[in-house]
Amino acid sequence: MSEQAVQIRTGGKILQSPCGPIIHGLEDVLIKNTSISDIDGDKGILWYRGYRIEDLAQHSTYEEVSYLILYGKLPTKKDFEDYVSRLRKNRDLRPETIEVIRNLAKAHPMFALEAAVAAEGAYDEDNHKLAEALRLGRYKAEEKELAYKIAEKLVAKMPTIVAYHYRLSRNLDIVKPREDLSHSANFLYMMFGKEPDPLAVRGIDLYLMLHADHEVPASTFTAHVVASTLSDLYSAVAAAVAALKGPLHGGANEMAVRSYLEIGDPSKARDVVEAATKPGGPKLMGVGHRVYKAYDPRAKIFREFSKNYVAKFGDPKNLYAIASAIEHEVLNHPYFQQRRLYPNVDFWSGIAFYYMGVPYEYFTPIFAVSRVVGWVAHILEYWENNRIFRPRACYVGPHDLQYVPIEQR
Amino acid sequence: MSEQAVQIRTGGKILQSPCGPIIHGLEDVLIKNTSISDIDGDKGILWYRGYRIEDLAQHSTYEEVSYLILYGKLPTKKDFEDYVSRLRKNRDLRPETIEVIRNLAKAHPMFALEAAVAAEGAYDEDNHKLAEALRLGRYKAEEKELAYKIAEKLVAKMPTIVAYHYRLSRNLDIVKPREDLSHSANFLYMMFGKEPDPLAVRGIDLYLMLHADHEVPASTFTAHVVASTLSDLYSAVAAAVAALKGPLHGGANEMAVRSYLEIGDPSKARDVVEAATKPGGPKLMGVGHRVYKAYDPRAKIFREFSKNYVAKFGDPKNLYAIASAIEHEVLNHPYFQQRRLYPNVDFWSGIAFYYMGVPYEYFTPIFAVSRVVGWVAHILEYWENNRIFRPRACYVGPHDLQYVPIEQR
Ligand SMILES: CC(C)(COP(=O)(O)OP(=O)(O)OC[C@H]1O[C@@H](n2cnc3c(N)ncnc32)[C@H](O)[C@@H]1OP(=O)(O)O)[C@@H](O)C(=O)NCCC(=O)NCCS
Ligand SMILES: CC(C)(COP(=O)(O)OP(=O)(O)OC[C@H]1O[C@@H](n2cnc3c(N)ncnc32)[C@H](O)[C@@H]1OP(=O)(O)O)[C@@H](O)C(=O)NCCC(=O)NCCS
Repeated sequence: MSEQAVQIRTGGKILQSPCGPIIHGLEDVLIKNTSISDIDGDKGILWYRGYRIEDLAQHSTYEEVSYLILYGKLPTKKDFEDYVSRLRKNRDLRPETIEVIRNLAKAHPMFALEAAVAAEGAYDEDNHKLAEALRLGRYKAEEKELAYKIAEKLVAKMPTIVAYHYRLSRNLDIVKPREDLSHSANFLYMMFGKEPDPLAVRGIDLYLMLHADHEVPASTFTAHVVASTLSDLYSAVAAAVAALKGPLHGGANEMAVRSYLEIGDPSKARDVVEAATKPGGPKLMGVGHRVYKAYDPRAKIFREFSKNYVAKFGDPKNLYAIASAIEHEVLNHPYFQQRRLYPNVDFWSGIAFYYMGVPYEYFTPIFAVSRVVGWVAHILEYWENNRIFRPRACYVGPHDLQYVPIEQR
Repeated sequence: MSEQAVQIRTGGKILQSPCGPIIHGLEDVLIKNTSISDIDGDKGILWYRGYRIEDLAQHSTYEEVSYLILYGKLPTKKDFEDYVSRLRKNRDLRPETIEVIRNLAKAHPMFALEAAVAAEGAYDEDNHKLAEALRLGRYKAEEKELAYKIAEKLVAKMPTIVAYHYRLSRNLDIVKPREDLSHSANFLYMMFGKEPDPLAVRGIDLYLMLHADHEVPASTFTAHVVASTLSDLYSAVAAAVAALKGPLHGGANEMAVRSYLEIGDPSKARDVVEAATKPGGPKLMGVGHRVYKAYDPRAKIFREFSKNYVAKFGDPKNLYAIASAIEHEVLNHPYFQQRRLYPNVDFWSGIAFYYMGVPYEYFTPIFAVSRVVGWVAHILEYWENNRIFRPRACYVGPHDLQYVPIEQR
């Protein structure tokens, strides 16, 4: 094919190479058109399929939002009931997957999640049928139906993997899913083995709704690259989990809560914030965002929720009080104002988790429980016009070195 | 940061979007400078660290080539002995990983490989130490040493995962690795439980040497994206395995051998090749390559090897005879000449595997056993100047749709 030059606009860093410019981290490089989610970082707006997340947070549920993200529109009553019933029937895991989790019970749950997702895909007949069709270059109505079916299974099963790991890690019996409970209620029920508190359910459901998609960060991008080889949905999701695990991606809400616990008292907020403004000083966890240069719309919702949560259950560790004090300082400090740094979603979202008794290391897995729907929706969107990802690296080493036998080196 | 426009040269397909041009599949987009491998597709040359693969194939071994790829230079005798001894000591797997494989014994080995790599990483203390340092932003001499140590473990353990899966899938006892055998001899020994034939060992070793790296195809790119979040080496390799699994990436040598078995007789070669030149006709498996527009240098080496292999062991299924006849037709047919289509590495590499008794579904896993060193070497190279991969998608959907209660839809 003949070469052409393309102009790409980026705010990222350019590295030079003998082969041409390199946009480090592919910042701002476009990979596709999408109609799944949109972010206005300047105004602090996030839309799923055209709906503002504030509206969804107020009126909807994760079950409905996941349908919206997957299928592109809000469901009719009938479609929604069918969808919810399919999700609920698909919650449990194969015995082999449970054994895989059991063998990883003493490890960090993100590793267990990677392995368990691969395991669940390994024995899914639908997955093999689809893989075989894709191998033969077929992706028509029948195959798409299969792909959506598999996508729904992934959405349904992720909470179960996380909850089973939690139980097994603590030498507790697993608690089987209950079909009469919502996605979020069932998740808490499988974790803690008892009827969950409605406000806790609402907290989990809000979290899941607000993390369901966020355009193409590294984990979602990973899902694209893997799926572009026509590997399968489970493998692509397992790979996305592997990317989300990285501290530059998932994991900041854990860090925020830990920092509040360390700070210990709201009266220290001023000093902590002041220290973060000094050159080389420790950054404030949960403050600042690559895209949002306004108050993160998800953070606003969690701030409100955290307030309600501690109003009902108390704030024995002062987490909410400390976060509020830090926020007050941040919003009024010229350093943060000038740099347009605001509390992000992670600043607030860990507080309720902590008080629900969710251990830190499950914060990122719960992120994956939510984001899985974004991952699969993006894959299905990309498959509509698939092209394998095959970038280049510019070779800058020597050529035609002479092989010298080891005795002469 | 202020925006700038960058000119990118590509031979790929451009998609339009309201946000600017999209280079489909990021074809020819540069992601970094590299000194690991280089390809001259026009001339049909492949170099690892500046050495031509013909020289390495003739004089070297996978153990040495993997050192070269990882450390950038050929080892001294002392360094090589130490390296080989570390590899050999690191071959076995943790009991939990073996249990994970056992639970996936009836599934395709690529799924088992994904899960087992994650499992092995889940309990590796070195991996956790490194992850913790990376989380705190530390990647100095000590951490790099740790990263290389982990990289070596991955190289050492991949064959064991594949061989154990083979044994367990057939209800055979696993065969523990032997420290007195080379990488390739030990692999065959763990697969088949007996002292391997030297020519078979040479065949595996050649295959492993010739697949050790190939710049940044989708699997290697996946490894970069995952590792760029500062997730860990095991997770990045598990994700790369997930990408390699796709039929657009790994897996073509299996298809080639299958097609020879179907063809059955060399006398049919002419008709088969003729049919492949017809519009919409079935493509010849193992012919043509995205990058090589000359005879794939790896294919030449395997052609020679296959010839020697069948000279010693015979060609009872006519695989070599059929491949030779097809090649003869391809090289002399104007259709293939005009399009610069030549047999690629997969055209020849499956024949010896087949006669060694390696089942098809293990062909791609063996690809992974080789390529793992390329994956980890590329990650270590990228970490020297890490930047999280964060491209964009262009939103083309609606905004500010009104949420309508479900009863009114
Ligand atoms: C999220 C983050 C990486 C965004 O990065 P970015 O948009 O590339 O912004 P930069 O890192 O270039 O920061 C811009 C400026 O703000 C400062 N800054 C950014 N976040 C800060 C924070 N949390 N505390 C103190 N200063 C901060 C930087 O030091 C830099 O200052 P300078 O211009 O004087 O050098 C960054 O804000 C951060 O590290 N936040 C804390 C960790 C966190 O919460 N991460 C999770 C986000 S989901
Ligand atoms: C590897 C492959 C995808 C390379 O793709 P590419 O460089 O993008 O080349 P294209 O697919 O654009 O093919 C160019 C032309 O050669 C033809 N062609 C390519 N490979 C062919 C094959 N194996 N048999 C018959 N025709 C082939 C194409 O039909 C096309 O013809 P056209 O110009 O009349 O449309 C392609 O050669 C192929 O599918 N080969 C067979 C499968 C295989 O062995 N894959 C493993 C490679 S590692």
